[in-house]
Amino acid sequence: MIGYGGDYNPEQWPREVWDRDYEAFRLAKVNTVTLGVFAWAHLQPAEDTYDFSTLDAIVGRATAEGERVVLATPSGAMPPWLAHAYPDACRVDFEGRRHVYGQRHNACPSSPDFRRLSVALAGRLAERYGRDPAIVAWHVGNEYGGACHCPLCAAAFRDWLRERHGDLDGLNRAWNTTFWSHTFTDWEQVQPPTALSEHWRGPNHTAFQGITLDYRRFLSDALLGGFVAEKAAIREHVPDTPVTTNFMGLYQPVDYHRWAPHLDFASWDNYPPEDPSASRTAARMALAHGLVRGLCGGKPFWVMEQTPSVTASRDVNPVKRPGVLRLWSWQSVAHGADAVLYFQLRQSRGACEKYHGAVLDHAGRTGTRLFREVAALGEEFARVGAELTGARTPARVALLVDWDSWWAVEMSDGPNRNVRYLDVLTAYHRALWQANAPLDVVPVTADLSGYDVVVAPLLHVVKGDFAERVTAFVERGGAFVTTALSGRVDEDDNAFLDDGPFASLLGLWVEETDARQPDVVNPVALFGTGHEARHVFEVVVVEDAEVLGTYGADFYAGAPAVTRAARGRGSAWYAATLLDDAGVAAVVRAALDEHDLTGPLADVPD
Amino acid sequence: MIGYGGDYNPEQWPREVWDRDYEAFRLAKVNTVTLGVFAWAHLQPAEDTYDFSTLDAIVGRATAEGERVVLATPSGAMPPWLAHAYPDACRVDFEGRRHVYGQRHNACPSSPDFRRLSVALAGRLAERYGRDPAIVAWHVGNEYGGACHCPLCAAAFRDWLRERHGDLDGLNRAWNTTFWSHTFTDWEQVQPPTALSEHWRGPNHTAFQGITLDYRRFLSDALLGGFVAEKAAIREHVPDTPVTTNFMGLYQPVDYHRWAPHLDFASWDNYPPEDPSASRTAARMALAHGLVRGLCGGKPFWVMEQTPSVTASRDVNPVKRPGVLRLWSWQSVAHGADAVLYFQLRQSRGACEKYHGAVLDHAGRTGTRLFREVAALGEEFARVGAELTGARTPARVALLVDWDSWWAVEMSDGPNRNVRYLDVLTAYHRALWQANAPLDVVPVTADLSGYDVVVAPLLHVVKGDFAERVTAFVERGGAFVTTALSGRVDEDDNAFLDDGPFASLLGLWVEETDARQPDVVNPVALFGTGHEARHVFEVVVVEDAEVLGTYGADFYAGAPAVTRAARGRGSAWYAATLLDDAGVAAVVRAALDEHDLTGPLADVPD
Amino acid sequence: MIGYGGDYNPEQWPREVWDRDYEAFRLAKVNTVTLGVFAWAHLQPAEDTYDFSTLDAIVGRATAEGERVVLATPSGAMPPWLAHAYPDACRVDFEGRRHVYGQRHNACPSSPDFRRLSVALAGRLAERYGRDPAIVAWHVGNEYGGACHCPLCAAAFRDWLRERHGDLDGLNRAWNTTFWSHTFTDWEQVQPPTALSEHWRGPNHTAFQGITLDYRRFLSDALLGGFVAEKAAIREHVPDTPVTTNFMGLYQPVDYHRWAPHLDFASWDNYPPEDPSASRTAARMALAHGLVRGLCGGKPFWVMEQTPSVTASRDVNPVKRPGVLRLWSWQSVAHGADAVLYFQLRQSRGACEKYHGAVLDHAGRTGTRLFREVAALGEEFARVGAELTGARTPARVALLVDWDSWWAVEMSDGPNRNVRYLDVLTAYHRALWQANAPLDVVPVTADLSGYDVVVAPLLHVVKGDFAERVTAFVERGGAFVTTALSGRVDEDDNAFLDDGPFASLLGLWVEETDARQPDVVNPVALFGTGHEARHVFEVVVVEDAEVLGTYGADFYAGAPAVTRAARGRGSAWYAATLLDDAGVAAVVRAALDEHDLTGPLADVPD
Ligand SMILES: [Zn+2]
Ligand SMILES: [Zn+2]
Ligand SMILES: [Zn+2]
Repeated sequence: MIGYGGDYNPEQWPREVWDRDYEAFRLAKVNTVTLGVFAWAHLQPAEDTYDFSTLDAIVGRATAEGERVVLATPSGAMPPWLAHAYPDACRVDFEGRRHVYGQRHNACPSSPDFRRLSVALAGRLAERYGRDPAIVAWHVGNEYGGACHCPLCAAAFRDWLRERHGDLDGLNRAWNTTFWSHTFTDWEQVQPPTALSEHWRGPNHTAFQGITLDYRRFLSDALLGGFVAEKAAIREHVPDTPVTTNFMGLYQPVDYHRWAPHLDFASWDNYPPEDPSASRTAARMALAHGLVRGLCGGKPFWVMEQTPSVTASRDVNPVKRPGVLRLWSWQSVAHGADAVLYFQLRQSRGACEKYHGAVLDHAGRTGTRLFREVAALGEEFARVGAELTGARTPARVALLVDWDSWWAVEMSDGPNRNVRYLDVLTAYHRALWQANAPLDVVPVTADLSGYDVVVAPLLHVVKGDFAERVTAFVERGGAFVTTALSGRVDEDDNAFLDDGPFASLLGLWVEETDARQPDVVNPVALFGTGHEARHVFEVVVVEDAEVLGTYGADFYAGAPAVTRAARGRGSAWYAATLLDDAGVAAVVRAALDEHDLTGPLADVPD
Repeated sequence: MIGYGGDYNPEQWPREVWDRDYEAFRLAKVNTVTLGVFAWAHLQPAEDTYDFSTLDAIVGRATAEGERVVLATPSGAMPPWLAHAYPDACRVDFEGRRHVYGQRHNACPSSPDFRRLSVALAGRLAERYGRDPAIVAWHVGNEYGGACHCPLCAAAFRDWLRERHGDLDGLNRAWNTTFWSHTFTDWEQVQPPTALSEHWRGPNHTAFQGITLDYRRFLSDALLGGFVAEKAAIREHVPDTPVTTNFMGLYQPVDYHRWAPHLDFASWDNYPPEDPSASRTAARMALAHGLVRGLCGGKPFWVMEQTPSVTASRDVNPVKRPGVLRLWSWQSVAHGADAVLYFQLRQSRGACEKYHGAVLDHAGRTGTRLFREVAALGEEFARVGAELTGARTPARVALLVDWDSWWAVEMSDGPNRNVRYLDVLTAYHRALWQANAPLDVVPVTADLSGYDVVVAPLLHVVKGDFAERVTAFVERGGAFVTTALSGRVDEDDNAFLDDGPFASLLGLWVEETDARQPDVVNPVALFGTGHEARHVFEVVVVEDAEVLGTYGADFYAGAPAVTRAARGRGSAWYAATLLDDAGVAAVVRAALDEHDLTGPLADVPD
Repeated sequence: MIGYGGDYNPEQWPREVWDRDYEAFRLAKVNTVTLGVFAWAHLQPAEDTYDFSTLDAIVGRATAEGERVVLATPSGAMPPWLAHAYPDACRVDFEGRRHVYGQRHNACPSSPDFRRLSVALAGRLAERYGRDPAIVAWHVGNEYGGACHCPLCAAAFRDWLRERHGDLDGLNRAWNTTFWSHTFTDWEQVQPPTALSEHWRGPNHTAFQGITLDYRRFLSDALLGGFVAEKAAIREHVPDTPVTTNFMGLYQPVDYHRWAPHLDFASWDNYPPEDPSASRTAARMALAHGLVRGLCGGKPFWVMEQTPSVTASRDVNPVKRPGVLRLWSWQSVAHGADAVLYFQLRQSRGACEKYHGAVLDHAGRTGTRLFREVAALGEEFARVGAELTGARTPARVALLVDWDSWWAVEMSDGPNRNVRYLDVLTAYHRALWQANAPLDVVPVTADLSGYDVVVAPLLHVVKGDFAERVTAFVERGGAFVTTALSGRVDEDDNAFLDDGPFASLLGLWVEETDARQPDVVNPVALFGTGHEARHVFEVVVVEDAEVLGTYGADFYAGAPAVTRAARGRGSAWYAATLLDDAGVAAVVRAALDEHDLTGPLADVPD
């Protein structure tokens, strides 16, 4: 059975509305409801008062209606009383400002009070509802994200650093603190990197990349700490029901690869950014589906949220055109989703999601185009039953995503602030997607042995034994494709002091890195066709590789721009510049072709 | 007599300059001087010291010169000693930062110390000068505006909320606090909406529109509290002389309709934003004149300030071209102004208004083009004498302006942040103005019975009995014209849970609201002519109305874009999208034509 | 001998790297190394612990290698322990936020603790190394700049104001505080001008220009105080070796003319902003070289830093094209530089300058294009030996640069925020440069008697006896060229209350000042050729001058735009608007031609 339904907040509505809602849900073949997200104030109106009566009724009614229930812990938004009683449970922002109560996703991840209270409530919920067979999954928190820079986080960061770097010598070495007289001689001297300490012009402009990189890792881990603690509290009462939280796809602040081992299954909220190209949007969603599927070893995942019609949080919120909802929903299933859920089943009456689309609008209409499309899709999903769920596809191609590189390349001073990790990642992904290659999207720690082709765009940071593993992969016959700015720094963002970890594999080293304004194009001839390169132009010295493409302009005209090194039974490919889409496709197809991996649906017109 | 003259600060100059000034004023036929604006430090050099000696001389001299005096209270700028003695009289800004002394318009409206001291000084002034027959008006404060978010304001906000919502249940209902777990269980939990609580990306991006909307109302009322208290202190000594303050026309932060009942007459400062189109600038000034005239039931108003030549506060400050000053000044009179005054009579020597234009420049020249134009206009005004003052025009058309809708539509999440209230309001106003329709600009609470046509663009918020009253207006024969995004929310910014208050009047309901980027145009055919629609495209279901125009593109091509419903003896018109100027004009003219209200000067070329 | 080499931080590297470095330095003919910049944490690991052992080794090795040593004091970046022990040694920024430890250039210049500790360390260094004959210069701090607005600075500002204005009456007069009720009655009421006091929309938007202007002067002096105190501590042990600090050329925050008397010789860091025009970049560097040479009476200066290849701090960091390094380096020498040094000799491993270019890259390569160019240049410099150093050129033309005018014209409210001092200064400079005129760049206090032509663009502020001196200069036969917006305000930014100090010299006064958006052009006919004027258009009344050019458009078409007044044996030229490059060149050439000062290399194609 494909899960179908979504977020539902009957506590915001009188009982007579519930009746009408379930009538509509039946029409739409809704079989899954997510309950309790943001219900904290409701469940615990004061620190010492719990009130489950309404939730009892809500769960009871859902069960009676035959729904599968996803039960949420409400820690995505704390209630006013909590912030009032514990002001330091509120976050301190990047500007160093202590916030007061408001919004959501607003709690300091290092606050012991928030931790204690959120975990206690998760435990109470598990204790009360854990045995209910209607509950098919637990949904902890909501869209974890954001940052805190408070004194509690500073202290937790110092502990985290002690764990990571051992002692101050290790810390000073990792952060290269002899630069600008930063040698730390006492742990208390260490500050979170903010606009008031190491940063200028915003979160990506830091004086010490190593400090900021560690703080991002710390924050990702600190948020994860909340998830893990709530999950543990649930597990005390609920032995088997899977626990997850809803991710946000290509979301930079949280390193989902650090989280993945703690999830029972992965899920995400599919709100692709507006792009006038339907094909690019489809590719972008495919990449995010792939990333999420890759988190738990390729296991089926859920689309925990999507909007049936409009978003509200964008500057401009177009409606989904007729048929788009169906198309995207089936795309989710095709990528391995076992559930396709909406945010939300009934539209909010007030506040900032008042105009966010819902299966049922403010008037609860079922005669609208939107509802008809929702119901038709429910019907389709109901017909296929369990045939399509739990599906797994073997893949021969791996696209590597690496949060450390994403962070590092975008906070780097030099060579070019216009280089955006996602732009390059999505360009390489689109080339693979248009080639219909059987693809996994995986971290750099993934076992590469099952793949024929590994593509790693902008792999700026090289950690652990990756260079050894990828070299072995190539020697055994694989094709490795990487790009400019890859292999530049170690895990602490310190430059390699030699030709870098990929030099002998690629058969070249980088002598100079030119950067130019976005309107400057260098033509690159590649397999007899001209392409355009922009932003970054490495001048490489080829020691032992075949030159496939060369620059056409500037003082390095004629120098290698794309190379291929035969190594063992395999090959290592390098694009020393950022190519346009056709150029990326040419490189990627050539590597795929060596393994005959272009798929049967390649180049289907949009 | 048309009041002519303006702000004058002789306390900044030695006495010999006064002599030369009055010589020039006589040449320019200046008959009115505004004295004492920003003179606080001068009048009260310390908390326990008042010194009226210079003001005595200033008022005495003005009186001796036969001038009519407008006496100001100086509360528009507090003196340094006040801020130093009472730091919490300074404001806390939207970012949560306590300001220290500087600028003007800088006092917390909830500060008891500022209130006490400003009111005491107003009382002293009234006591001393209240009987002077030369004083024709009292001018309280200056250009009230800005915001404070301090603890004193937080406390005052809570009191204001208690008054408005009764108890916490009422508050929670109004703000829809079950959303995102916001249920308030103690008044002290309520925070002013700021960058540190509910807001993200600035004042128009709030998690809870209801909270922010109430805070804007509160702030408008809090500032009004200062005006009312000063006026009361004046009234203790001055029984009859009218009291006013200078408004700023189309100024979003203060709801002038909430203030209007407290003014004896209205006045405003006419500094239209630069617009390359002279016609648009003229229309914009006409709208503001109309708005101000509409505040006190159509009574004559004053232009309290305008510049004779340049502004200084803009990035680029062009001089008024020859003849423009005369044109704009007569436009003011034609719209009902009884006085047309300058800021300022003598140019400041230093600080930020040093280059703001003045009747007398730094060198006190009277031989300049500027002075000649000022003097010629003075001569013209002197010739017409009292013929033109006190004039009132009966109007048959009402344009509704609603601060709540202005606020709500621009802080809404969804459908489209590019929708700006003033853009739409001014487009509809320009259509009425170019049609030369006899127009009032009034609040939604105005009595509609005297009008034939009522135009209400972007009336997003529908309050009180407005829907009933406008329905009755139509039934009795009136034409009501409204637009997309109207009739969406109630006074608390909560969505209506049915087809909305205008549905039966308009004969339609809105099924979907599409939004597109600014470059996307949907052609709308209307009375046989093609127009362009942008930004917002409602797909409406017409139950009982005539379709006048339809969309030409997208999946809703052919769907109604403009409708007219015959109701009783009248009609209700709806533009379901934002039309270009010609499209707006077509709708407006059609409605006016039903009542034969296009004026004799319609379509005069610019 | 031309100094050649640059910043070197061997304390960041193991000893075996030192060996390889010096090998490379010998290849590159490096003869000068700058040591100890940013070494504070290293030299003084705790408040009561100094450790010179590594520096001993570093200096010893450099000396043994025959290098000339520039020894730096490390006060450009304080160590973590200092900020931790003395939190108020950290700055408070323009937004009023106290910073915590991070970055560099981060110390409050008014902090007694920072002052005490930085001066003590400078003294210790001087005591230990002062007698070493290898040390050819002392380099205090680094690129002084930035701002602080803390309570310590507020107190120091009040002292500085007492010194400057005598008493509060003087202060109130200078700041024109009767405007907006700002009369200060106690020194404690005076606040630094910040976003929390007088400013809106940033550092250039102030309610009181006089306050902000004084604060900029104070900050420049406060930073200078640190330099002077360190220099004094050095002088206690080092009688003769010259002391300098590295300036940043056209750097607005610090008035280098206020600093110049305290330098033994001037030096600067040459990082020109990216400009697609090589000619404009060359002219800009020429202007900065001229400015720096002009600081110490025309004495030779040093280029203390330049990058051999790329910067890292820009958004986009292109490499220097082949030959550019040589070209720019020789340009430096041609302008009077006795040393041309690099930042840096060895590339940083981590943090924000990791990708900043260096003579030796991360791998220490000497076979790169970059190293070859560096070595070839070292060879060239070595060949010329001492022939070119210590050179001085007599100049007949003076270009006046005035920080007060730079500050005042850009913080002015009105007429036009798009007027940028550097745009106008560089336009006039380029005209002089392209004319190959023998040029000095000097302050307004310079002795004008040796010049034939004095050019003063945007000399908004006129101080002291300048008007008398320049009048005498003209009477004696000189040509004075100035522009729109010159001669407007006195030293306190108060407007002149008559025709201004240049009126009789120029033979005109300004009746109106029009300002227009950047796309508005007024054609100006000048010597029979058409030019374009933009931004500011003064309508002047000519009393006694020849009209050379007139406006071609707007209501002042036909009015004078460029004039020349014959005075005594000389002439005074005025451009009443901002002309395009060709227009500026026409004016400048005409003035130069009167003295036959166009040089032999004028109009050499780029
Ligand atoms: Zn925290
Ligand atoms: Zn307040
Ligand atoms: Zn300070």
